[in-house]
Amino acid sequence: MTHARAMLETHPSPAGTLSTDTLAEILHHLEECAQTCTMCADACLAEDMVGELRRCIRLNLDCADLCETTAAVLGRQVEPDTATVRALIEACRAACAACGSECANHADMHQHCRVCAEACQRCEQSCSQALQQLNA
Amino acid sequence: MTHARAMLETHPSPAGTLSTDTLAEILHHLEECAQTCTMCADACLAEDMVGELRRCIRLNLDCADLCETTAAVLGRQVEPDTATVRALIEACRAACAACGSECANHADMHQHCRVCAEACQRCEQSCSQALQQLNA
Amino acid sequence: MTHARAMLETHPSPAGTLSTDTLAEILHHLEECAQTCTMCADACLAEDMVGELRRCIRLNLDCADLCETTAAVLGRQVEPDTATVRALIEACRAACAACGSECANHADMHQHCRVCAEACQRCEQSCSQALQQLNA
Amino acid sequence: MTHARAMLETHPSPAGTLSTDTLAEILHHLEECAQTCTMCADACLAEDMVGELRRCIRLNLDCADLCETTAAVLGRQVEPDTATVRALIEACRAACAACGSECANHADMHQHCRVCAEACQRCEQSCSQALQQLNA
Repeated sequence: MTHARAMLETHPSPAGTLSTDTLAEILHHLEECAQTCTMCADACLAEDMVGELRRCIRLNLDCADLCETTAAVLGRQVEPDTATVRALIEACRAACAACGSECANHADMHQHCRVCAEACQRCEQSCSQALQQLNA
Repeated sequence: MTHARAMLETHPSPAGTLSTDTLAEILHHLEECAQTCTMCADACLAEDMVGELRRCIRLNLDCADLCETTAAVLGRQVEPDTATVRALIEACRAACAACGSECANHADMHQHCRVCAEACQRCEQSCSQALQQLNA
Repeated sequence: MTHARAMLETHPSPAGTLSTDTLAEILHHLEECAQTCTMCADACLAEDMVGELRRCIRLNLDCADLCETTAAVLGRQVEPDTATVRALIEACRAACAACGSECANHADMHQHCRVCAEACQRCEQSCSQALQQLNA
Repeated sequence: MTHARAMLETHPSPAGTLSTDTLAEILHHLEECAQTCTMCADACLAEDMVGELRRCIRLNLDCADLCETTAAVLGRQVEPDTATVRALIEACRAACAACGSECANHADMHQHCRVCAEACQRCEQSCSQALQQLNA
């Protein structure tokens, strides 16, 4: 059991907009993606060919910021504002898609970009599933 | 001149998706709103009637997180992903609207909520203007 | 293998101030503690007795912020400033100690505080180990 | 009057560990420094000679993270943990000193580094003053 699931299961009044399974999964992927992107930006910065990785670094930084904020907002169960939650997951999905796609371009050359592309793709899928559940 | 404007004017290659005037203004309002919301959450927590301010505290925390992330993403000029930028400003506008509206409900009772409602409203307007410019 | 370890092992030039094992462990505990504290603040806010949990909520928010920032700084391998790294881990250890101790006071009453106290204690220990290694 | 001062003056129970003047000033400098460092990292990334600005970018990112977290923690007035507050300001001062010094090395070549060095130095001084007041 992840710590996020443990916290969801001990909360006195869950929001109920997303199922506990969906929430626990997306929270796990968001944390993973945030930290991976922070570290990929740094690994790209250390590469000899840093000049060709500018867009990758920029998207890594955006994606890390978005994933952290999305994890914080989704982690809160007290009376959420649905419009904010939905728009934020959309923004996070877009950031994961952009960063995952850019990192995938460098996956053959840089192993950290391969690891990061995978984290972004998992997180993008979790965002899509959460949006489907919110819109159902 | 704000420090954000000074940084925009000395950047080697501005993104150009938003005018310098629009960017400098929204960055100022985002920073102001982020810090104000962080402090309003804390001031609400200190009130005797904290039990009636739960939703206000929650929306303050969301709005602070969103404004900080939006300021970071908009502050970067290197090759932005337009879909992410647009969705993020939408999410931030929604957070400012929700928090501003909730704080306005308590503005007569709590002066910190009045100050915070005004900061949220200014920031919401800046988000709307930026979106208009992005969509023009 | 955690994603943080995968990123450390594919970095072109690790900083070397901390061993990969120590870094991978503290990064895992920092992420876990940050998200747990964010969620404990929210769970406390939802409790009937929120008025008695003010200090707990405040320390949760501080600890979440500190753990996130410490994870970001330690995750970067490019030419770190040792004085900053050391002082930041000290600050993070203090935040984990304060929050873990406060949450432990409510662990019998609130299960989320029990889960959070454990996450804080693990993270505090990781900070202590990292400091020992930095000072060796 | 800054928004931070307006919030401090409307808080129901200020912490009192720092004077309102000191707090309002350091909060202003922390916000300014955080956003300036975020933007300097990006401006450095856009420079032709990015390969020579790796350490500057890294320290910019650290300093932005530290200043944001310090602003959040100092902005909270509810029952602070003094050990955390003191250690965090120490860490923030170290980050500002390291980043300010590195940016000052490039101030002749890059105007954004000159602007950023000045923001770091102002923030470092505010941290020193706050520490003096805490230790008095």
